[in-house]
Amino acid sequence: MKSHTEYFTFHTKKKRELVHLTPKLEDVLSRSGVEEGFMLVSAMHITAGVFVNDNEPGLHEDIWKWLEGIAPFRAEYKHHDTGEDNGDAHLKSLLIHHEVIVPITNGRLDLGTWQRVFYAEFDGQRDKRLIVKVLGE
Amino acid sequence: MKSHTEYFTFHTKKKRELVHLTPKLEDVLSRSGVEEGFMLVSAMHITAGVFVNDNEPGLHEDIWKWLEGIAPFRAEYKHHDTGEDNGDAHLKSLLIHHEVIVPITNGRLDLGTWQRVFYAEFDGQRDKRLIVKVLGE
Amino acid sequence: MKSHTEYFTFHTKKKRELVHLTPKLEDVLSRSGVEEGFMLVSAMHITAGVFVNDNEPGLHEDIWKWLEGIAPFRAEYKHHDTGEDNGDAHLKSLLIHHEVIVPITNGRLDLGTWQRVFYAEFDGQRDKRLIVKVLGE
Repeated sequence: MKSHTEYFTFHTKKKRELVHLTPKLEDVLSRSGVEEGFMLVSAMHITAGVFVNDNEPGLHEDIWKWLEGIAPFRAEYKHHDTGEDNGDAHLKSLLIHHEVIVPITNGRLDLGTWQRVFYAEFDGQRDKRLIVKVLGE
Repeated sequence: MKSHTEYFTFHTKKKRELVHLTPKLEDVLSRSGVEEGFMLVSAMHITAGVFVNDNEPGLHEDIWKWLEGIAPFRAEYKHHDTGEDNGDAHLKSLLIHHEVIVPITNGRLDLGTWQRVFYAEFDGQRDKRLIVKVLGE
Repeated sequence: MKSHTEYFTFHTKKKRELVHLTPKLEDVLSRSGVEEGFMLVSAMHITAGVFVNDNEPGLHEDIWKWLEGIAPFRAEYKHHDTGEDNGDAHLKSLLIHHEVIVPITNGRLDLGTWQRVFYAEFDGQRDKRLIVKVLGE
């Protein structure tokens, strides 16, 4: 069994931003030497997410608008009594989820034609970490 | 370490439909020969999902109604500027998620009494693929 | 390859309750002897969830309020025609998700500084099971 672990740090310019991860993940896979296995892609923060969907800017606008609709910023979150103002970022992270597993087959990310992996920053403008861990053979 | 990969293609009659996967997954597990491990069940499309819940038709009606409530069809999605009309299917896929991991113990899917695995089609009536990948020993 | 499986049973006092799992998971990891791998933490019921977020009581209040807002109790769920009254618990489980994968690196749960793992009970006051399965080396 082989395992291979890498960490990435993102520092987005905007508070809310998407980072396309797929090319970085292909590089990690190449360095891992794994031919058959699973790749875990997981945010190491509780105000960020990781998801698989289309790399289409219009859709990304729709996603942000939708997220703001069902997990909106609200001044009155109890979490803000701690001095934070990012309660919505925690809820967005729960909704989108913080991790995905990508299958690896024949030494390649076994994604469908339109599947791309994204890091979703909900509370950026500071260093945030992501772990990519490959397990297989 | 053993790995075993199978692909399924679904072509649903309706645009939105659930497909009960558990019996198919038991067959895959049997063919894999894995006794202890993880089974990844993942849609290969960005307008479909995979989830674990109850095989109860009334609940399924509730799920569809709920999904339409919080990730509704809307003509005005930006994604539709590309010529598509399935923006809601992308959002439903993000909400439900496109994959699950099923534990395998003693050569069996280690699911709870009422847990069943479903493929959720949000934009069907065409060929859509699913990957099932087993890793273990 | 090593695999290690443990089951936990929770019987919460309240119908809806969070159980902080991280210390229990560290104990499981220690018993597994795994240094590099994945830990699956998965509810074995369809009215419970598992998630990663902050161990902050104010945030937990926000999460419960938010969940009740977008997956509320409703007398009229079709699922209730079966005699059940927990339709909302199924929807909350779909939203929060029933499982997470925690990476294991150098014999430790490879979580970010503020990441903690929680079992979310949506229909408690009875025995409910959770599986923790470690795969690695």
